[in-house]
Amino acid sequence: MSASETPDTPVRQAARRARTAAADLAPAPRTTRDAALLAIAEALTARADEIVAANAGDVAKARAAGTAESVVDRLTLTPERVAAIASDVRDVIALPDPVGEVQRGSTLPNGLELRQVRVPLGVVGIIYEARPNVTVDAAALCLKSGNAVLLRGSSSAHASNTALVAVLRDAVVKAGLPADVVQLVPGESRESVTELMRARGLVDVLIPRGGASLIKTVVEQSTVPVIETGTGNCHVYVDERADIDTALAILVNSKAQRPSVCNAAETVLVHAGIADTFLPRALEALAEAGVTVHGDSAWQTVAGTSGRTVLPATDEDWASEYLSYDIAAAVVPSLDAAVEHIRAWSSGHTEAIITADAAAARRFTALVDSAAVMVNASTRFTDGAQFGFGAEIGISTQKLHARGPMGLPELTSTKYVVTGDGHIRE
Amino acid sequence: MSASETPDTPVRQAARRARTAAADLAPAPRTTRDAALLAIAEALTARADEIVAANAGDVAKARAAGTAESVVDRLTLTPERVAAIASDVRDVIALPDPVGEVQRGSTLPNGLELRQVRVPLGVVGIIYEARPNVTVDAAALCLKSGNAVLLRGSSSAHASNTALVAVLRDAVVKAGLPADVVQLVPGESRESVTELMRARGLVDVLIPRGGASLIKTVVEQSTVPVIETGTGNCHVYVDERADIDTALAILVNSKAQRPSVCNAAETVLVHAGIADTFLPRALEALAEAGVTVHGDSAWQTVAGTSGRTVLPATDEDWASEYLSYDIAAAVVPSLDAAVEHIRAWSSGHTEAIITADAAAARRFTALVDSAAVMVNASTRFTDGAQFGFGAEIGISTQKLHARGPMGLPELTSTKYVVTGDGHIRE
Repeated sequence: MSASETPDTPVRQAARRARTAAADLAPAPRTTRDAALLAIAEALTARADEIVAANAGDVAKARAAGTAESVVDRLTLTPERVAAIASDVRDVIALPDPVGEVQRGSTLPNGLELRQVRVPLGVVGIIYEARPNVTVDAAALCLKSGNAVLLRGSSSAHASNTALVAVLRDAVVKAGLPADVVQLVPGESRESVTELMRARGLVDVLIPRGGASLIKTVVEQSTVPVIETGTGNCHVYVDERADIDTALAILVNSKAQRPSVCNAAETVLVHAGIADTFLPRALEALAEAGVTVHGDSAWQTVAGTSGRTVLPATDEDWASEYLSYDIAAAVVPSLDAAVEHIRAWSSGHTEAIITADAAAARRFTALVDSAAVMVNASTRFTDGAQFGFGAEIGISTQKLHARGPMGLPELTSTKYVVTGDGHIRE
Repeated sequence: MSASETPDTPVRQAARRARTAAADLAPAPRTTRDAALLAIAEALTARADEIVAANAGDVAKARAAGTAESVVDRLTLTPERVAAIASDVRDVIALPDPVGEVQRGSTLPNGLELRQVRVPLGVVGIIYEARPNVTVDAAALCLKSGNAVLLRGSSSAHASNTALVAVLRDAVVKAGLPADVVQLVPGESRESVTELMRARGLVDVLIPRGGASLIKTVVEQSTVPVIETGTGNCHVYVDERADIDTALAILVNSKAQRPSVCNAAETVLVHAGIADTFLPRALEALAEAGVTVHGDSAWQTVAGTSGRTVLPATDEDWASEYLSYDIAAAVVPSLDAAVEHIRAWSSGHTEAIITADAAAARRFTALVDSAAVMVNASTRFTDGAQFGFGAEIGISTQKLHARGPMGLPELTSTKYVVTGDGHIRE
């Protein structure tokens, strides 16, 4: 067994405790898991002062270190925010239970009864940045789906996460579950992340939530299976037969409604046949929304004649996930050329076509290979809550296991239960 | 783009050609894919002589190298075997098309229409051993599910695989598809396998088919997502309330019907309450089937009093996937102790319980976390054909994406298609 050859460390010990706890949690019925979630919601409210006090330490340190105010804001917990987190946990209780759902079943010709049943994954590791709400959110979704969770947040939120996890652990014990179904990964060093990524056989899946560089590191170094999430270089393609007003509204909404998130658009591609009409109006609408355009020569020419500024786009722009009020922009000779551009540069998150032409919509949705393809709708709709999943652990941009917004079913595996009465193979 | 920083090699070039071909293949309707499969079946029959001649070279080399006769047998192609392979391709044509199947769909409160649709994975890499039939079988399943395939067989079957892939490529072109939907990975060196494992972004999934050491290497070194297949340390647990004759029949069938395959049993666990009756009869039945028992002290004691030989079992035996006429054997004090043993040593493939007790069956299936759990049936039933899937690309022993026998749906991903009429987020 290769696991026993690896030197034991606090991280591996924690993973082993999670594994044992997961075995107890997996067969626990919904009532037990929901009771644990209710205990968590109640404890968060009851112990909000303690949590906010611990958080104040993290916030003071972050400010002293000159951290950007937007990051400090995400880090900050107030009594109101803790109450909102507790309310989110109550919402998770109400969601349908994925565990035990029969995916398919049949009686085989020899009389064997076959059932494929959803089961928890086991131990889920989450690596994330300085957002303490993720600590509770991820733990709640893992508990609901019967998984033990190993949480590895940012060291800048360590005091907050320690306080939150103490509350969570006390609450699950009250509901009769082992405390180790929820654990913070011990240690604040980089090595503890590396050990978590190497704990194959102890941890069933790692979900990195955060920036592109974090995700790239985990994907490249982890021997534990990874679900890649959240990198979104999303495209809006305005077809030759787009309604101009619809296209403008969707473009501006996709780009500027909330530029810092993964489902915001980063590139607009416009069919040459509509460029003369569309580009001047798009430049005006984007300027009004405060968006800087990085355009190809066609966009630059139109900008010149209409007195607007367009920065010249390079390959770096086509590849960029700006997450800011910037957009790359090109004119393409055809729908197929738009698809080619998307194939070359997209991260496979979300692409939208704006068109009144049914054949164009059909061709675009068939040829574009991304987690979500929008027809006459904003890229901003790729989201677990918007899709009606009630919860979201992340948005997968990979093709294995889960693709697109991941809800509770995506936190499960399956097993086959086969029942006979003495069946043997001839 | 990290891909462009990696030095270009023949393997990466092949993967890039596969990627381009996959984009053409993905939107091809079933009729085109089925026509390609029919052309393959016909070409295999028409060009059987050419294939058998190339294979004869591999076989001669293997014999000269002193290869075991069982391995030479698996390597060998005859006109009859080629005809059987062609017939298997015809069977794949008849299977339901997984591509385009709508997995779920709804109309969201805002009127957006959401559909989750099955799509091909893209480029599938298969790494396998000296069985030329896998070349055709894997290519046929990938084509049927709309995927381009990169085949990396054993160098000892290189001439056979080269001949087979030439036939396959000619056939798919005849059906109007690009030849590069089927490719042999260039090069026979270990480095070419390493390059394949590092072609993240070009190859969507790697499926290693073969021995435990091959699979371990791929799992540890690949940055391309891997589906682990086929390691089977399977257990038969004989409960206190088992019918003795049923238990004997299932035990012997699980172990000895075909010991060389992954769903054969490798360990038998017997409840202490039935050991006095069961062990002497089990020793007799296993001896008759030619099986060597590696037992704990209880089995050794019974062997002593009944004049049979039982080798002492060590931790190595509990961990072993013998794939031979050997079995590890222990007596356990309870069902829960059997579950503990399985949790400690199983590879998570298949475990069986033999019992007349409904509560014991229910507890065992709830607590055992393996791809398949059998109740009163042989472990040998964990198999795509037996499960009625009509085809099998392997048996997954991991929890992500696919678990247990993998048929055509497991060779697909999904995408969300979302249709509106100008929807934007407020």
